[in-house]
Amino acid sequence: MTVVITRMSTLFLRTLRDDPADAEVPSHKLLVRAGYVRRVAPGVYSWLPLGLKVLRRVEDVVREEMNNIGGQEISLPALLPREPYDVTGRWTEYGDALFRLKDRKGADMLLGPTHEELFAQLVKGEYSSYKDLPVTLYQIQTKYRDEERPRAGILRGREFIMKDSYSFDLDIDGSKASYDAHREAYQEIFRRLQVKYVIVAATSGAMGGSASEEFLAESEVGEDTYVRSPESGYAANVEAVITPAPPALPIEGLPAAAVHDTGDTPTIDTLVAWAQETFPDRGFTAADTLKNVVVKLRSPGGEEELLAIGVPGDREVDFKRLEAAVEPAAVELITDADFAKNSFLVRGYIGPKGLQDNGVRYLVDPRIVDGTAWITGADAPGKHVVDLVAGRDFEPDGTIEAAEVRDGDPSPDGAGTLVTARGIEIGHIFQLGTKYTDAFDVGVLGENGKPVRLIQGSYGVGVSRMVAVIAEQHHDDKGLRWPKEVAPFDVHLVIANKDEGAWSGARSLAADLDAAGFSVLIDDRKASPGVKFKDAELLGMPVVVVVGRGWANGTVEIRDRFTGEATEVASDTAVATIVANR
Amino acid sequence: MTVVITRMSTLFLRTLRDDPADAEVPSHKLLVRAGYVRRVAPGVYSWLPLGLKVLRRVEDVVREEMNNIGGQEISLPALLPREPYDVTGRWTEYGDALFRLKDRKGADMLLGPTHEELFAQLVKGEYSSYKDLPVTLYQIQTKYRDEERPRAGILRGREFIMKDSYSFDLDIDGSKASYDAHREAYQEIFRRLQVKYVIVAATSGAMGGSASEEFLAESEVGEDTYVRSPESGYAANVEAVITPAPPALPIEGLPAAAVHDTGDTPTIDTLVAWAQETFPDRGFTAADTLKNVVVKLRSPGGEEELLAIGVPGDREVDFKRLEAAVEPAAVELITDADFAKNSFLVRGYIGPKGLQDNGVRYLVDPRIVDGTAWITGADAPGKHVVDLVAGRDFEPDGTIEAAEVRDGDPSPDGAGTLVTARGIEIGHIFQLGTKYTDAFDVGVLGENGKPVRLIQGSYGVGVSRMVAVIAEQHHDDKGLRWPKEVAPFDVHLVIANKDEGAWSGARSLAADLDAAGFSVLIDDRKASPGVKFKDAELLGMPVVVVVGRGWANGTVEIRDRFTGEATEVASDTAVATIVANR
Repeated sequence: MTVVITRMSTLFLRTLRDDPADAEVPSHKLLVRAGYVRRVAPGVYSWLPLGLKVLRRVEDVVREEMNNIGGQEISLPALLPREPYDVTGRWTEYGDALFRLKDRKGADMLLGPTHEELFAQLVKGEYSSYKDLPVTLYQIQTKYRDEERPRAGILRGREFIMKDSYSFDLDIDGSKASYDAHREAYQEIFRRLQVKYVIVAATSGAMGGSASEEFLAESEVGEDTYVRSPESGYAANVEAVITPAPPALPIEGLPAAAVHDTGDTPTIDTLVAWAQETFPDRGFTAADTLKNVVVKLRSPGGEEELLAIGVPGDREVDFKRLEAAVEPAAVELITDADFAKNSFLVRGYIGPKGLQDNGVRYLVDPRIVDGTAWITGADAPGKHVVDLVAGRDFEPDGTIEAAEVRDGDPSPDGAGTLVTARGIEIGHIFQLGTKYTDAFDVGVLGENGKPVRLIQGSYGVGVSRMVAVIAEQHHDDKGLRWPKEVAPFDVHLVIANKDEGAWSGARSLAADLDAAGFSVLIDDRKASPGVKFKDAELLGMPVVVVVGRGWANGTVEIRDRFTGEATEVASDTAVATIVANR
Repeated sequence: MTVVITRMSTLFLRTLRDDPADAEVPSHKLLVRAGYVRRVAPGVYSWLPLGLKVLRRVEDVVREEMNNIGGQEISLPALLPREPYDVTGRWTEYGDALFRLKDRKGADMLLGPTHEELFAQLVKGEYSSYKDLPVTLYQIQTKYRDEERPRAGILRGREFIMKDSYSFDLDIDGSKASYDAHREAYQEIFRRLQVKYVIVAATSGAMGGSASEEFLAESEVGEDTYVRSPESGYAANVEAVITPAPPALPIEGLPAAAVHDTGDTPTIDTLVAWAQETFPDRGFTAADTLKNVVVKLRSPGGEEELLAIGVPGDREVDFKRLEAAVEPAAVELITDADFAKNSFLVRGYIGPKGLQDNGVRYLVDPRIVDGTAWITGADAPGKHVVDLVAGRDFEPDGTIEAAEVRDGDPSPDGAGTLVTARGIEIGHIFQLGTKYTDAFDVGVLGENGKPVRLIQGSYGVGVSRMVAVIAEQHHDDKGLRWPKEVAPFDVHLVIANKDEGAWSGARSLAADLDAAGFSVLIDDRKASPGVKFKDAELLGMPVVVVVGRGWANGTVEIRDRFTGEATEVASDTAVATIVANR
């Protein structure tokens, strides 16, 4: 066994007094200041000794829990040929997020963003009988995504480490069992890593498949917005919220639709002001208006299509929800040129009639059910129509989940109302069904001699991101505070006494701790106690032992970085005290 | 501690009966047949469970020995910005071997082939005082080189794992000490991995620097040719052999040079025949002729230059030696168009005069010293000059190491003669001097307050390649034979008895071996003993235990995969026997 005492006097580490200029979130600031990571390019980082130790410890936790559910570790390349991604269409669907390159012979290659295709091909190559199944394979591997906005250091990198695993089963029940096993393994991983998280219903996006859930670490700096109903426990990524549709209303007896001159009323505010003035008794609000937003969809193949979205006027269109709803098509705003080309689009006065008469697909918010009456554009400047009734005066082409979700909206499960919060995606589990196994014809001979198409699952944990997430959730204004399971060292031993006896005593204390199975970082630098204490707080080992003034009286101080508690103990009981709190 | 018994009935492994069609060397055939690796693209491989275990064990040995010499592990990205490689010129010097790509914003990036630039920049960023030095940093990381001829599976891949380390010292003596420490660490690594190797003097190539040595694994399938003098112990890569120059000879009294009509004599053979017939008394051989070979050099910047090389007619030009000698320029053959453009180049009759009169740089083999007389071309069809004396009739522009090295050549160290052999590069250590630290201005404040430029060393071990090298050196016609230090499992337990008691006995034997600290692969498949024995030989664990016919009589068989020895022992002493041979 190698001695794991590391001396700060020789450790490749320089802490920084100031926050890096490009850092906005606490984990980024602290991981750079404490010398855990260094930036090489946007979204591309180096791991210095302490950072690499945390990363490896996170990997080990993930590996153990994957092994516990029978996962088998393998390792696929990051540099991949184009062909498999062409078969599934993801070569184009990934858009600019895919790093593409050519080799010296001109062959198209890519840097793998995720490996569904390759694992499907691999299983096809090895397995041929139902007796071989089920199987779960995983890797802990470097992935590449050319993020539009890499941010927050290692929180959203372009080169990052992921654990990705893939299950292959003979039937849906088996696939569901593999999915559930992963779900439990992930819960255990995040529990061990002391990450606070929620599991939310999610959309499957470019991945495809039938169902998916995201694990979101609770964090104000997160990029994902999710909602939950405190009453029912329901939780979902905002993109996955299904708006509860109210029941249809009777149409008979409703007033007839009528076009009005509304003057200069191109906005909801001006329109509502006109409606309240014109119909003082009807109590109109923005929720009675129907706002029609037109965008351009671009398919992965490059085809353009106009799409109109109708939402109640008191809500905005949420473009992240819209993008998730039309995936894999991309959403683009329409331009002056588009207005010029489509003269039926009258800015501020767009109505269902003009859209549908001109063949524009028109999808509405699920709240716009038959029998609801609306004030909306009449396709001419200064004109709106009042009492336009869905199911009587217009028939949308369908519904779309694109309206914003707000605090107080009713929960989709019918119990309570929603509150929104922010989170960081740390895990995502997918029931892929046969999307990839169909694409590559991955099957085996079944028990009855007939071919069986395999059912695939895909599961990811952001391993390098996890280091940032833990730092994000576990720090104070003085520095990092690592949970024991992932700290780079178990004990940080600070020599804060110039006496030679204290130094040799500290060294033998370090050796005793090492013998007791603790990894020890010893601060043997010729620096002032103040500098050393500050660094110990910044670096964030869970236990700090100070060989300081008390040494002459036979005591050392043991500090708990989490609670901040400091205890003076007899030097010769220090190891036993730390063992007792292991 | 997780139980490490792995069951073949569920292991993601299918062995193949036949060699893969694209495999030529034994390690490639066996690693594929035994299910250790799978090909994804040319020179790009996946590691399946057993292969990954060997790879990780090799990594662990390398890591331990690097830690033992004070190396600190860090991890740099593989995806790198262009700028640092522009500063040193390697962005272009690497030529087609560099994987280049653009990110979504059009920025040039590359996949790191080696990280001298980045480590120099990193040290510059952290360190500022002489007190910080020396430091040795290393990483075990995925590297990328777009090899022209990826071959032999993982032996020469385009994506591969390397341990690269870099030392930074205040002076040459320190740098030499770091170099020596690495040299010793590498010897220890290869000893532990049971790799037979030689250390040879090497050229530094594109890496730059003052001195380097290569560690070559002895192998007939190696791509590197090296020579050694069995008498003196001298060893060198063929590219690094320095030809001993004979002493200059007196010029006085030598016959005058004379041009002769030699008829149709464009080859050395025809020329020698003419010379022997014309001068029967002078005993001319091919060694008396001077062959002039003209090539085109292309600099990394794209400039072309003609270069003529003069070698004794009994030797060929060795293009690998030539390429190493003119690095970083690339060597190209001259074409008909070049001959047409340069009419002084008369094919088969090129002589020093025509070359030098027309400004072509003319470098000769070191054996062509002053006072040596030659038969060579006279720059006209059917004409040669006899008794052309170096230092009297022509003055070469210098010497070049481009002639082939042959068995029996005198050793450069003056003792004995050379024999050639083939090897696989498994390690390379470089004294870089200040090439990179100059480029990035990497220095610290010295003890006297003056700036000190750091001296860098660079050291690499081919980690993934090592798996193939070990397989190459340790196999027989039945399969792989892993050394204990890197075997995927310590013990392969074969159940070759249908009796239920034998099965449960085997399982408890596996548990006992596990408890004794051995990793165990148990063949619990419903297959015939013959199939299982064949697979055990193919997979190559060092110890194979067979629970077979003898079980009823209380015995099991222990087979040593290295020696082939089989011993029948009492079942209840099996674990003790294996422990004794640990």
